[in-house]
Amino acid sequence: MSEDPETEHPKPAFGWAAKDSSGILSPFKFSRRATGDNDVALKILYCGICHSDLHAIKNEWGFSSYPAVPGHEIVGLVTEVGSKVNKFKVGDKVGVGDLVGACNNTNSCQSCSDGFENHCPKQIFTYMGRYYDGSVTYGGYSDWLVVEDRFAVRFPDSLPMDRAAPLLCAGISVYSPLKHFNLNEPGKHVGVVGLGGLGHVAVKFAKAFGAKVTVISTSPSKEKDAIVRLGADAFLVSKNTEQLQLARGTMDGIIDTVSAVHQIVPLINLLKTHGKLIFLGPPDKPLELPVFPLVLGGKVIAGSCIGGMKDTQEMIDFAAEHNITAEVEVIKMDYVNTAMERLAKNDVRYRFVIDVAGTIKA
Amino acid sequence: MSEDPETEHPKPAFGWAAKDSSGILSPFKFSRRATGDNDVALKILYCGICHSDLHAIKNEWGFSSYPAVPGHEIVGLVTEVGSKVNKFKVGDKVGVGDLVGACNNTNSCQSCSDGFENHCPKQIFTYMGRYYDGSVTYGGYSDWLVVEDRFAVRFPDSLPMDRAAPLLCAGISVYSPLKHFNLNEPGKHVGVVGLGGLGHVAVKFAKAFGAKVTVISTSPSKEKDAIVRLGADAFLVSKNTEQLQLARGTMDGIIDTVSAVHQIVPLINLLKTHGKLIFLGPPDKPLELPVFPLVLGGKVIAGSCIGGMKDTQEMIDFAAEHNITAEVEVIKMDYVNTAMERLAKNDVRYRFVIDVAGTIKA
Repeated sequence: MSEDPETEHPKPAFGWAAKDSSGILSPFKFSRRATGDNDVALKILYCGICHSDLHAIKNEWGFSSYPAVPGHEIVGLVTEVGSKVNKFKVGDKVGVGDLVGACNNTNSCQSCSDGFENHCPKQIFTYMGRYYDGSVTYGGYSDWLVVEDRFAVRFPDSLPMDRAAPLLCAGISVYSPLKHFNLNEPGKHVGVVGLGGLGHVAVKFAKAFGAKVTVISTSPSKEKDAIVRLGADAFLVSKNTEQLQLARGTMDGIIDTVSAVHQIVPLINLLKTHGKLIFLGPPDKPLELPVFPLVLGGKVIAGSCIGGMKDTQEMIDFAAEHNITAEVEVIKMDYVNTAMERLAKNDVRYRFVIDVAGTIKA
Repeated sequence: MSEDPETEHPKPAFGWAAKDSSGILSPFKFSRRATGDNDVALKILYCGICHSDLHAIKNEWGFSSYPAVPGHEIVGLVTEVGSKVNKFKVGDKVGVGDLVGACNNTNSCQSCSDGFENHCPKQIFTYMGRYYDGSVTYGGYSDWLVVEDRFAVRFPDSLPMDRAAPLLCAGISVYSPLKHFNLNEPGKHVGVVGLGGLGHVAVKFAKAFGAKVTVISTSPSKEKDAIVRLGADAFLVSKNTEQLQLARGTMDGIIDTVSAVHQIVPLINLLKTHGKLIFLGPPDKPLELPVFPLVLGGKVIAGSCIGGMKDTQEMIDFAAEHNITAEVEVIKMDYVNTAMERLAKNDVRYRFVIDVAGTIKA
């Protein structure tokens, strides 16, 4: 525990919460939990708005609980450290993503042992979860967070906090599959389907790895952004069969960020032999899977969901080294409901980030 | 060329061919092609009957041409070698699978360069293909075959020729994915869906690799065979949800050999995090692919199609070392139409093998 005499509990915390599945957020007061021996407490500075926040507050996946303070793309400053924490000290700049805890049992849990806490059956989500002490977890649309030290990463000084906040979810969500499916090698050809929050950082990471990057989108209007602003090498309109035919069999892997139901055969056809089509944003209805083209080309379809903590630290350090940030629109806390409406219409290029510390009012 | 004075061309060859898509085979005389500089000519001793022979002679995949002499699970003796062949000499025992040629250009063809001739765009199938000289390729239901030396493997003396002939297709078809998806390690848990020609050798190879093997089948009657005859560790009836629930999340990989349309979610659920479901026998209609369970578990669905030549040699040597053969019913050449009828009803445990040399009559 910190020796700071101000750390009495319960102290009040403040955030914006959904109280029901209407998806409307409103101011919300709650009590801070004590900072455990392995925990760090943060003053939250910035928090990105991930599309999954919108799904969650509207209970579109069916497992929401209320009140819910969303937010899992968090950058903050350490204000208190638990007695057993050596990794951080008060004042450190840290990042927190989708997880604040897991079983951490490297003997019995293969996922924790392998560095994939994101697949631990006892993973604790940053919001709508239950912390080790049984209390509900509230996310980053608030002024305060407690997180186990293992689940906070050192946030590099050279990265701008607002523009890099989204990397804590969007960044690791694309970095992890690029790495684990060996698409992080110079000369690889990587396709990115969908140019939104995930897709636009996928382009940047894949370029930084040295890949040739082709964006595949339903919106011809995004071509200029893809090429000029984000640095992609090529752009394919997904309905343009002639373009797709020309690119047939050229890609080592495709990162598919589109959660609307869509045809996958045209994407499978873009892959080389042994190429990989990796889904990050699962459509809520089943897709049609023709097996023949998979078998003939020895091809792979996979799913990927955020990433482990070692990879998250590696990702943010890599981002700092290669100057990778998200393209963001920084908003005030009380703009969040408008932002959600715009997000639902894909009216953002490419991520909202809340200036939490600068604009939240208790 | 051999100095054998008998090697005049054209010499007659004899086989059993489908003349149209009725699927009926009848005796067929054709001319041998010359043995090219890089070729070996074989006297065929045994040939397995693969399910794909049945699809092919009935034109069920839509690209058959007639007359068609099927057969790509071939064991024979070298009778003649081309002038540039050092790999074999007359009298050698060799095996030939699905391919008799490919582009072999390791500079321009990634597949040939990587040892995956089975994915070379210019691969030449053992039958219904066009050989380098433009002539039609005829398969193993005949007394004679010419094959480029690269596409024949040394057949180990310790393996029985009849029982091991099916390994040239069924064996490599399961060995290659077990190897390339890292399921060839002791302690892995491998599921095998469907206990037929491919499935039963998948059990044997996976066991030899040191895996725990669970057979998943619609037929409860196959349990005894799976466990006692083939050495599987466990057996699940695919409709028994209770059994499936108990095995949930336990498998590193599943080899799916079933070409009928079937549900894949129950199989995905059997996989551990990052587990792999690998299709060998593509259903002719698309399957339903729910993406959520793939994403949440970081799971993989893949297709695999036979294997490369280096792997095929490795497979047959591994089979010899571990005493792996198929379970076969050896038949005479003129039983082949009856065998096809029985195969269509899955009435074989587990592979027909034609005693070609012993029973073919010109």
